[in-house]
Amino acid sequence: MERFPEQFCDQLRDLMSWRRDVRHFHADRPVDDAVLETVLEAIRLAPSVGLSEPWRIISVKSDAARKKALVNFEAANADALSGYSGERAQKYAGLKLSGMRDAPVQLAIFCDESTEKGAGLGAGTMPEARRYSVVSAVMNFWLAARAHGLGVGWVSIIDPKQLALDLRADEGWALVAYLCVGWPMEISQTPELEKAEWEKRDPLLAEVQER
Amino acid sequence: MERFPEQFCDQLRDLMSWRRDVRHFHADRPVDDAVLETVLEAIRLAPSVGLSEPWRIISVKSDAARKKALVNFEAANADALSGYSGERAQKYAGLKLSGMRDAPVQLAIFCDESTEKGAGLGAGTMPEARRYSVVSAVMNFWLAARAHGLGVGWVSIIDPKQLALDLRADEGWALVAYLCVGWPMEISQTPELEKAEWEKRDPLLAEVQER
Repeated sequence: MERFPEQFCDQLRDLMSWRRDVRHFHADRPVDDAVLETVLEAIRLAPSVGLSEPWRIISVKSDAARKKALVNFEAANADALSGYSGERAQKYAGLKLSGMRDAPVQLAIFCDESTEKGAGLGAGTMPEARRYSVVSAVMNFWLAARAHGLGVGWVSIIDPKQLALDLRADEGWALVAYLCVGWPMEISQTPELEKAEWEKRDPLLAEVQER
Repeated sequence: MERFPEQFCDQLRDLMSWRRDVRHFHADRPVDDAVLETVLEAIRLAPSVGLSEPWRIISVKSDAARKKALVNFEAANADALSGYSGERAQKYAGLKLSGMRDAPVQLAIFCDESTEKGAGLGAGTMPEARRYSVVSAVMNFWLAARAHGLGVGWVSIIDPKQLALDLRADEGWALVAYLCVGWPMEISQTPELEKAEWEKRDPLLAEVQER
C-alpha cells in the first residue's frame, strides 16, 4: 500500500485525538479475551532496535499481585503529593491518577535489557533505544485499543524496581509502563489534567527550529 | 466516537504492518511543506506525562549541520562494527543503517528535561516518563507519515550528547531520536534487518505471563 486513502488519514487523526489517558473504568464490564488478544497483536507490529523485540508482558491478575501494585502506587503518589504545597498540593490531592482499583485488565510492560536478540545492533550508542522500542509497542497497543473502544491509562507514579520484584519479573527486565485497560466511563478529546485545570495543552506545536 | 468501524480497525492493523524503518529514500523527491506540517500535527496528539508536552524539534537542513550529524553517525557506526567479529562483522558492514545521505527531511527530536510544564506530575518516580512521552510522539508521527505514504527511519547509532552540541540544542534538551523522512524507494511489510538475515521477527508475541 503506497499511501492510505484520505478518509483513513482523517480517521487516524481522529483516533489520535480521541486517545486519552483513561482513569475511570467500568469495573463490572470485563474485557473479552479475544478483543484483548487482537489488540495485543499491535505490540508485535511495533518497531524495535535491531529487531530485538524486547517487550515482555506480565498480566497482573491475582488479588495479591494487584494489592502490591496498588500499595506501590499509593506510596509513590503520597510521596509525590508531599513535593507540592498550597494550591498545587490541594489540586494534586484531588486528581484521580490511576484506575488501578477498577480496571479489569492490568498489564505491566517490561523491557528485557538482557536480550541477545538483535545482537545489540543499534543499542550500543543509545542503549535506551531498547526501552524506546517498548514505548513504541505501548503506543501501538494504545491506539489499537482505542480503535476497539477500549480505554488505556498509563501509570508512571510507581516504583519500577519494587514492582519488578513484587511481580517476580525475570532478571534484566525493567518496567517501562503499568497499563490499566478496560471500558472507559466516558470518552473525551480533552485530557483529564486539562479538565482538572492542572495544565493546558499548547494550541500549537512549538516552533520547529532550523539548523 | 465510542469505537471505530471494523474496517478502520483492519486498516490500522495494515498501517502498522506496512510501517517500516526506511533507509532508502528518493533523494530528488522533496517533501511538500504542507504534508510535513500535517504529519507533524500528530506529535501534538501524543500523550505526555503530566501534560508536559516535552517534545522539541530541530530540523537539520544546512549542509554544515547535516555533515556534522553524518560524521557523528559514521563514527558511532564504525565503533559499533568494531564490536563484532567474523560473519557478524561482515554482515554488519554490509547493512545500510541510515538514510542520512538521501533523506530530504531530517529531524532531531529532543526531550526538554527541564520543562516546568506539567509541574513535574508523574515524573517524580519515573523521570524517564518524559522521554517516553517523546517516543510516543515519534510513534504518532511515524504512523501518520506512513499513512500519507512517507517513509521514516529512526537512527539510534549516534552520539546523542555530541549531536545536541553540534545542533546547538537548548540546555536541558536530550536527544531521543534522529529521524530521516522522505519518499521511500520501496515499500514492504518485511523489516530490512530480516531481509538482510540479521535477525528474524518472532512469529508470535511472547507468552503473557500471569501473576
